[in-house]
Parts: sequence; C-alpha cells; structure tokens
Amino acid sequence: MTSYTPGNARIAFIGLGIMGAPMARNLVKAGYEVTAYNRDSARAEAFAKDGGDKASAAPSIAAAVQDADVVITMVPASPQVEEVILHDDGVLDHLKPGGLVIDMSSITPQTSIEVAEAAKAKGVKALDAPVSGGEAGAIEGVLSIMVGGDQEAFDAARPVFDALGKTVVLCGPHGAGQTVKAANQLIVAVNIEAVAEAVVFLEKSGVELSTALDVLNGGLAGSTVLTRKKDSILAGNFQPGFKIDLHHKDMGIVTDAARAVGSAVPAGALVAQLVAALREQGDGGLDHSALVRGVQRLSGGTPPTA
Amino acid sequence: MTSYTPGNARIAFIGLGIMGAPMARNLVKAGYEVTAYNRDSARAEAFAKDGGDKASAAPSIAAAVQDADVVITMVPASPQVEEVILHDDGVLDHLKPGGLVIDMSSITPQTSIEVAEAAKAKGVKALDAPVSGGEAGAIEGVLSIMVGGDQEAFDAARPVFDALGKTVVLCGPHGAGQTVKAANQLIVAVNIEAVAEAVVFLEKSGVELSTALDVLNGGLAGSTVLTRKKDSILAGNFQPGFKIDLHHKDMGIVTDAARAVGSAVPAGALVAQLVAALREQGDGGLDHSALVRGVQRLSGGTPPTA
Repeated sequence: MTSYTPGNARIAFIGLGIMGAPMARNLVKAGYEVTAYNRDSARAEAFAKDGGDKASAAPSIAAAVQDADVVITMVPASPQVEEVILHDDGVLDHLKPGGLVIDMSSITPQTSIEVAEAAKAKGVKALDAPVSGGEAGAIEGVLSIMVGGDQEAFDAARPVFDALGKTVVLCGPHGAGQTVKAANQLIVAVNIEAVAEAVVFLEKSGVELSTALDVLNGGLAGSTVLTRKKDSILAGNFQPGFKIDLHHKDMGIVTDAARAVGSAVPAGALVAQLVAALREQGDGGLDHSALVRGVQRLSGGTPPTA
Repeated sequence: MTSYTPGNARIAFIGLGIMGAPMARNLVKAGYEVTAYNRDSARAEAFAKDGGDKASAAPSIAAAVQDADVVITMVPASPQVEEVILHDDGVLDHLKPGGLVIDMSSITPQTSIEVAEAAKAKGVKALDAPVSGGEAGAIEGVLSIMVGGDQEAFDAARPVFDALGKTVVLCGPHGAGQTVKAANQLIVAVNIEAVAEAVVFLEKSGVELSTALDVLNGGLAGSTVLTRKKDSILAGNFQPGFKIDLHHKDMGIVTDAARAVGSAVPAGALVAQLVAALREQGDGGLDHSALVRGVQRLSGGTPPTA
C-alpha cells in the first residue's frame, strides 16, 4: 500500500464533536484535503468556513466519502459506528475499493472486528484507532493512538496518525486498539477511585491533605492520576476534563469486553457501579475525578463543587 | 528539645527484622551509639558483632532502654507494639523522663494515639513514624518516613530520621503518620489490582502485553506500580519485594482505620478480600504484584511462578 501522505490522499472525516473537530483541523494543518460530514451540518460548515481551501463540508456520508482515499470516523459509541459505517448508505456503500476506513471512536473490540470483516468483504481496509489524551490532546495533536489491524495498513496510515498524535502504537490485530483503550479506561477509573478513597479517609482522619498526597505520590502509591488530578481534587473543582458520562460508557465497554473473553474484573466492575451511581446522582457532567464525591456521599456528606 | 544528633543521643533499637536490622546499621553508620534488643537474641548479637564499637546488644528491653535518649521500635503489628512499649517491663517502664520513643512499625493510628497518651503520662515524648520503601529502601537509607506527633519532637528527631530515609514528612498529630501509611497501602493495593485486571484482560484478548503496558503507562493510566512491577509481572516472577502476608495485615489496618473515622473504602475493602483470598490460596509469601495470580485464577487458570 502507498503511504497516505498529504500529497496523495484525500480524507473524509465523519463526526466533528469535541474530539473530532480539532482532529479534522489538525489534518488540514498537516496539508491534507479534508471533507467533513457531521449529523448536525452546522459544525461541518463551520469547519469548512474556518479551514481554508483544503477544508470542505459534505451534505451526506455518500458525498463525503465518494472521492476519499481514507475515511476517519469519530462518533460516540458502537451504535453510531455501525450506523455510519455499516448501514445502508454508510461508508462501506460509497468508499472505493482499496480505500481505508479508520474508526477512532472508543467502542467494543467486537464491533471493530465486525467493521473490519464487513470492510474486507467490500475490498476495503480497516483499522480501529481509539485515542486517549482528551480534548486538550486533540487540540494540540498529541493524542495517544492505540491501533488494531494489519501492519501494512498501519504503515500506510502512519502520516495521518502523526498529524493527530504523539504516541502511535500498533497493538495487534483488529480490535486490539479498542482492547488496549478499554484496559486504559479500566485502570484510570480504578486508580481514581483509589485516590478518592484515600482522600476521604485522610480528610476524615484530620490529616493535612496536600502534604499527604505529595508524600503518597512520591512512593509506590504514585500515579499519573494523582499527579494530574491532585490540585483540582484539593480545590473541589470537577470541571471536565473527561466526563463521568463518557467514563460510564467506557466502563460498559470494558466490562462487556472482559466478559466476552472470560476475564474477571472485580475491581473494574465495582468501580463501574460507582461511576454509574455518580451519574444517577446528577454528576454525569463532572470530571471523572468527581469519584471523590461518590466516596464523600458514601461517607456521609458531599461538599459543593467549586 | 535538643536535637538528637550522634554526638548527644544514645539510641535503643527494638526489633531487628528485615526492615529493623538494616535501619539499626544505618544509625551506627551515621555515628549513633545503638543498643539493640531482639526477641530472638541471635540477631541482636550479630548486630553487635558486625557493627563495631558503637553497636551493642542488650538481653532485655530494660537493659536496652535504661541509658537511651531515643528508643526506636520496629515490630510486626499493633499487639507487638503494645507488648514492647506499654506492657510491664516494656519501654515506658524503663525510658527516662524526657526521652523519646519513635515507633516505626506499621500499625493502626488508634494504637499510636494510645502509645502517645501512655508516653505523656510517663513524661516521655512519642512519634509514630511508619515507613515505605521496603527492604531495599531500608538498606540504602532512602525510606519515606511518615511522621505523626508534635513539631518539637519531630524537629528533635530529624537527624535520626535523616540517617534512615530520604523523604521525611510530619503529616500531623499522633497517629497521622500511620493514617498516611494506611492510605499508601490502600492506593498501592488498589493500583496493583487495576494493573492485574488489565493484564489478564489483555492476555485473554490476545494483545501483546509488553507493548500494551508501555502505551498504558505513558498516559493517564500510568503509575509507579506499573513502572516498577511491569517486568516482574511479564516474567511471572513474584519473588518479594513486599509480601502478600504483610499487605494483608496492612489492608486490615486501613479498613479498620477507615471504619473508625466513618470513611467508605469500597474498592479498598474489595481488594482486601482479594489479598486475603490470595493468602489462603498459598501465595502469602509472594510479592503483592501476585494479585495478578488471583485474577488469573478467577479467570480460569494460573500459570506457574518463575
């Protein structure tokens, strides 16, 4: 396969949400011609207006995809991926044979495998390539990108990934990118819960929290969660960041995926419940570090958010 | 209070276990006169024999303590601390008024508070000063030391702590050192369990583990646990390190201490159960990273250890 460089590849980008919009802009900045489609067409038109002569908007998936070499999808969850790629008048009905579809949504590994099989039947290549790094990582083009699929397609897509992310890794066959992303979300949620329980325990024990968290972060209890979330937890500031609502979706993915391969995730499943409870308690729009609010409620009280 | 420097302070050291023995040696290296007592007297005699003219062994707590300015205790758990410090013919029966007892064992905050109250009644100062960093940290004199007590006693003991550790922090009043240590053990156990569940999920999903763990450690899922334990987990090598048996004791401390202050630790309590199960399954002597073996068993099989 030829490498998909800005000189020889047109990209269709489907899904201009919080993550997708800055990613599409970064592709234009890298020199790609990008045609965007979004269900709410205003976002695609804004992208075309602000993006200069390499950026355009399409009124339908068919129009976005028909002249593309690479299609990138960035939508909320598995049902939207199926709708956009697999259903009638979706990507696979219009992408030319030999094209490549890269789904960068975070979905179940099983759906990624189904997409790859359907693509293969149409003579199209597929990669699953979920990301981590959040909105800030998307804007700055420093996402971590976890890719599943074959080496040849990965190598061909490398210039596209390099326009979007800093750490780009082929994790294994179709679905493997989603599997690693799911493992990421499992560890992150459980590590946040660990910090949350320690924070409430320390507070109720009357220990000065800032000093204690610094000591803890300097030893084996240290984590990127503690480093990045300490200040906002101390301030009671749970502006997202990454929303509880989205982590709830991802905990569903990882518990489903673990069940599918016969892997026990007792702590993951417990924390999935605590995330779900937080959402039902009205905190779905807060940052996932708001798990500390869940522990505070279980312990008799919740301070107001900052 | 005068600062307890090598020139003006004699130290009694009680408890020459895996941690205590190298700590006592580091005090001698720093220039302190150290008289050691150990229930099994052979260890105290070995310390005296190898330690040069500043190291001596005592046949009883009374003999170790009677001429000491500072008494350090480093014993397995709360019952031994009570026995050695509080019971008849213990430290408080023989330490001269104005002396300082530093308990460096990991025990419940409540016992540390009781020790401090009993010490005060005898005109003696007390600090709780549990450590983290394991045997390697003890040998190299780079322990993290989490101290509870008053500022004056902490300042006076600072030269002693500096001979033993690298990070030395006054965390709050009596018991606060134990509280922070308990929070440390909670986070460490939960973070290990998170990695363990991710590892088994990735393995059963057929993902190449080493690459995946590197990607995960580079993002928000990163942790000191993942950094330090990755290679041994990949190799199936669970030589301790820090034994499951000891972490089991510490999970009892943190769940008790959390209950005492009315703080919920749902993930901590779950992982305490998983640590307890691992111990009953015969893995108590393995490193705490062997939590991955517990998840493997729950998922249908356990590879042999390396």
